[in-house]
Amino acid sequence: MKLEHIGIAVKNLKDSNLLFERLFGQPSYKVERVDSENVSTSFFEVGESKVELLEATNEDSTITKFIEKNGEGIHHMAFEVEDIHAEMKRLEGEGFQLINKEPKRGADNKLVCFLHPKSSNGVLVELCQEIKV
Amino acid sequence: MKLEHIGIAVKNLKDSNLLFERLFGQPSYKVERVDSENVSTSFFEVGESKVELLEATNEDSTITKFIEKNGEGIHHMAFEVEDIHAEMKRLEGEGFQLINKEPKRGADNKLVCFLHPKSSNGVLVELCQEIKV
Repeated sequence: MKLEHIGIAVKNLKDSNLLFERLFGQPSYKVERVDSENVSTSFFEVGESKVELLEATNEDSTITKFIEKNGEGIHHMAFEVEDIHAEMKRLEGEGFQLINKEPKRGADNKLVCFLHPKSSNGVLVELCQEIKV
Repeated sequence: MKLEHIGIAVKNLKDSNLLFERLFGQPSYKVERVDSENVSTSFFEVGESKVELLEATNEDSTITKFIEKNGEGIHHMAFEVEDIHAEMKRLEGEGFQLINKEPKRGADNKLVCFLHPKSSNGVLVELCQEIKV
């Protein structure tokens, strides 16, 4: 397992891209719209990990709801695993609640699954596995 | 710059240690009390990064206030830099607000400085530099 990225909810991706560009001293390397999740995303490389900015593309986005409740800020942390099915099974056995029972396609060419924050100390945890061509 | 750790505010370090041990499939490698910050901390290694759990040791702790306002959850993200003084100067020049004007001693043998969430998209950002003996 490695820390793949931290996801940050933002109101305006364009403004936040400039802000995080100043923070990291380098620009975002990729902007990607993920319609299945109702988000536009932007990625920064920081060492071996990434920071992902997330802007809602409509009212149904979980990012809209998150910002209404909490304001902008850290939304989730994501861990890369080698076998997402095996890891989901292991974690369910350990009492963690999976939000999606099957991996789904996320940003950045990944299969993803989320653990419910209620079962993980208030933290939205994402598991991800790269889709190999 | 690399993503050194993610800090997570918890109510009960003992309980959360067991929870994150199940999540990561390995135990915490270090528990450390940091009296200057009014916290007890516990660290997990995840690839090249760490996850730090933070429990308040008294009412004055920022963790007490954070949990009152937000509940348990992700509290900050920390980036390791080679020269914390230079980086603080650069970021101040970029318009980020430093919470402490001089680096202070944090957990895990580090000099640390925090950026105010108001200037960084609602995210509490820690800069850290290892103290070399």
